[in-house]
Amino acid sequence: MQLTAQALADLLDGIVDGNPDVLVNRPSKIEEGEPGSISFLGNLKYEEYAYTTKASILLVSKDFEPREAVKATLIRVDNVYAAIQQLLQHFGQGSQQSAKVADQASIHESAVVGAEVSIGAFSILQEGVKVGDGCQIHEQVFLGENVQLGEGVILYPGVKVYANAVIGDRVIIHANAVIGSDGFGFVPQEDGHYKKIVHVGNVVIEDDVEIGANTTIDRGTMGSTLIKRGVKLDNLIQIGHNVVIGEDTVIAAQAGVAGSTKIGKGCRIGGQVGFVGHVTIADGTQIQAQSGIAGPVKEPGTALFGSPAIPYRDYIRSYAVFKKLPELYKRFNLLERKQISEE
Amino acid sequence: MQLTAQALADLLDGIVDGNPDVLVNRPSKIEEGEPGSISFLGNLKYEEYAYTTKASILLVSKDFEPREAVKATLIRVDNVYAAIQQLLQHFGQGSQQSAKVADQASIHESAVVGAEVSIGAFSILQEGVKVGDGCQIHEQVFLGENVQLGEGVILYPGVKVYANAVIGDRVIIHANAVIGSDGFGFVPQEDGHYKKIVHVGNVVIEDDVEIGANTTIDRGTMGSTLIKRGVKLDNLIQIGHNVVIGEDTVIAAQAGVAGSTKIGKGCRIGGQVGFVGHVTIADGTQIQAQSGIAGPVKEPGTALFGSPAIPYRDYIRSYAVFKKLPELYKRFNLLERKQISEE
Amino acid sequence: MQLTAQALADLLDGIVDGNPDVLVNRPSKIEEGEPGSISFLGNLKYEEYAYTTKASILLVSKDFEPREAVKATLIRVDNVYAAIQQLLQHFGQGSQQSAKVADQASIHESAVVGAEVSIGAFSILQEGVKVGDGCQIHEQVFLGENVQLGEGVILYPGVKVYANAVIGDRVIIHANAVIGSDGFGFVPQEDGHYKKIVHVGNVVIEDDVEIGANTTIDRGTMGSTLIKRGVKLDNLIQIGHNVVIGEDTVIAAQAGVAGSTKIGKGCRIGGQVGFVGHVTIADGTQIQAQSGIAGPVKEPGTALFGSPAIPYRDYIRSYAVFKKLPELYKRFNLLERKQISEE
Repeated sequence: MQLTAQALADLLDGIVDGNPDVLVNRPSKIEEGEPGSISFLGNLKYEEYAYTTKASILLVSKDFEPREAVKATLIRVDNVYAAIQQLLQHFGQGSQQSAKVADQASIHESAVVGAEVSIGAFSILQEGVKVGDGCQIHEQVFLGENVQLGEGVILYPGVKVYANAVIGDRVIIHANAVIGSDGFGFVPQEDGHYKKIVHVGNVVIEDDVEIGANTTIDRGTMGSTLIKRGVKLDNLIQIGHNVVIGEDTVIAAQAGVAGSTKIGKGCRIGGQVGFVGHVTIADGTQIQAQSGIAGPVKEPGTALFGSPAIPYRDYIRSYAVFKKLPELYKRFNLLERKQISEE
Repeated sequence: MQLTAQALADLLDGIVDGNPDVLVNRPSKIEEGEPGSISFLGNLKYEEYAYTTKASILLVSKDFEPREAVKATLIRVDNVYAAIQQLLQHFGQGSQQSAKVADQASIHESAVVGAEVSIGAFSILQEGVKVGDGCQIHEQVFLGENVQLGEGVILYPGVKVYANAVIGDRVIIHANAVIGSDGFGFVPQEDGHYKKIVHVGNVVIEDDVEIGANTTIDRGTMGSTLIKRGVKLDNLIQIGHNVVIGEDTVIAAQAGVAGSTKIGKGCRIGGQVGFVGHVTIADGTQIQAQSGIAGPVKEPGTALFGSPAIPYRDYIRSYAVFKKLPELYKRFNLLERKQISEE
Repeated sequence: MQLTAQALADLLDGIVDGNPDVLVNRPSKIEEGEPGSISFLGNLKYEEYAYTTKASILLVSKDFEPREAVKATLIRVDNVYAAIQQLLQHFGQGSQQSAKVADQASIHESAVVGAEVSIGAFSILQEGVKVGDGCQIHEQVFLGENVQLGEGVILYPGVKVYANAVIGDRVIIHANAVIGSDGFGFVPQEDGHYKKIVHVGNVVIEDDVEIGANTTIDRGTMGSTLIKRGVKLDNLIQIGHNVVIGEDTVIAAQAGVAGSTKIGKGCRIGGQVGFVGHVTIADGTQIQAQSGIAGPVKEPGTALFGSPAIPYRDYIRSYAVFKKLPELYKRFNLLERKQISEE
């Protein structure tokens, strides 16, 4: 997809400053920009690159005043970051799948598939599956019995969805993620062996959720594990059985939530954080990476850090003294000896 | 599968208190119970729901005395939790695969497959694979050369088993788990590059083990990585080459065990725990989530916490003072200044 | 593959001490050695096994002097560990795939496949894929549009590679790893919802890299996520968008690197370590398992520990006092009370 500077300026509601006919076919980073690409200058920290980049077009702020000559054609816009997003979306569209069902897919005769749906090779739709309009089911995907997908869902290669999961509109799930595996529930017996708790629940994922590669979400023992509207889960996250995650909460990679914990909405949770089971976390909670949440969080908007986690500022202040402990210990011993020698 | 209250009471060895002919077809949580479902009251903390639930049947303890009118038919049993398990197992059976080999499976002519085995579409059995009676090999599974499965094994979609693994009876492995990948072994060369150590060992998994989704178990460099009878591994766990895990040990999600470490039997290991390689961990060790085990554990039944881990109670007591460090530091400085000013 | 002691001695440049015609077909650990296998004595700590092992051949150092009778035929070599590697490589070769393309693979007509390439059943090569000579693409692998593989690449079952990734020579990727998933990038909107940042970059993996099972590498937002020559990544690792990992750096299992962080060459990073985004880590940095890297590391060769990480020795010394905090706290309170009572 080749585009002129003028066509892009029209798309981005910007003004061309330079040759309006120069052609580009991809975005690039300013320091790596090559002829035929469009770069951007968002942060003036990188201004020097504006004078050296080989990109053909440079997206800049309306009020950018170059101190030296710029070789690239400029497109000036009100908000560079918003324009970048529009731009990326524009170029990203080129790689969308066409609506086509592969011959080598295995689709049960009872499955109901909407309009404009693509299904990749070696994917499987079992009995009773329902797929809404505009879904992209990539290759080697597995949808168990009675799985329901809303409209515009994208499932990348290798996603596995166990039976009875219900997935909303515009949900995106990345490669090899697993939705609906059995929860980790076992009852210890008198002889020290464990007996498996059967799981008859499911997973419910609401609209506009995105789930990362190789993330796992266990289904409810009974009832549902529930991922609410707009939640964003990064890669390699573990969500236990009967967990509830509130609207617009974002969780970074490799975090884990044990069974039956309920996380509020609008929370921001760092990578490798762990949550104990059966607790409730207030709305807007912010948790620093690698923290361990060992109990409920009652106050909305709390910031936490540490394992077990305590208020963020308290942890930072305690850790500052932790770093001085060897010195403090020496000084204390000295003081104590003096005291004793004086007695 | 519709069942009457009387049929369920017979199954659970309980007594009907209400309409014996009411029909249910699924279990439900008491607070979400709908007509046509059976709920239970296990913990009296939830007693209020007994009076408001819409479930058609309610499973209760033999000696439960309602304070208000209960609409649901009651089934009274000796042990509610045991009865729930039986019940879930009963309803769970409805979703079992029928013993059927998909046309689109790829099965080497030398593979030996037992009776009543199901094999899903796009699954692969390579040369020399042996599958015991009653196994359920779901879709998109890979079994490398000479892999052996005992009886009643369940492999969920996308499980990958490298060559020569030996898997016992009634083992359950969840979706996209990987069994038998190369261990992480490299020899540094003089030029700073690393040379790969070839792995010629395998993985041995004994009877009644359950392994979670996206968990990875590396095979032995030589000899075997060994998961003993009754071990339960949650999702996203890493087990290194030549590790041994003892009988009935349970490990929560995202824990990792480095190469050649031997964990005893009956241990309980929390989520995101890490073990250094080449150490031995005594039977019955209990490790708090996120702890780091940096050396051997010699005393059976030890409880540990922290990174590096120390005895649980010691960590809790030290951490209690850690939280007071800023205040302690102030008080110490004050005391020290006084002392000096007095000199 | 049966081999005589003499044939093996010739291969390993060693000397036979015993029966040169005894046959073996596999390596074994010295304490588990069975007739028909070859074991080794690398560390004299295990010398006692030399006198009890049932292995038919024992690989020992040239200057090994047995104190008792050894039943096995000895092969004496200069460097036992180097010989073991050669030996394992020799036996490991037996399990290599033959160069064969499965009928059930799905290969786009535009894909270019080199000589001596094997492609397993249910694998997919999309439009524009290029595969170099001698590659082994195992079963159920997905290669998206325009993915390029160098020569001698091995992709194990279930590996998923998103479009436009570029993979160098002799790269090994283990089962169910995901290369090129979208980075975790979302822009918060005024209403608290998040808007997805489109990712148009790719992943570039240079020569001689090895990547573990179920590891995930996100592609660049723009530009590339770059894994340089000789890097070794263990299982279940998360690499964020636009990360750069320097030559010959090794990272243990379950570590995570947030977006745009640049790690130097020759670093050694422990398991479950986490890196914040947008920082630069100097060459030769060594990081203890479970540490959290919250800022840049400027000094090459630094050793770090803790969360947030500090110099390794400082952490160890502070942690030593941390363990004494309850006692220190008591002694401090005592001292303070004395001081006050004396006033």
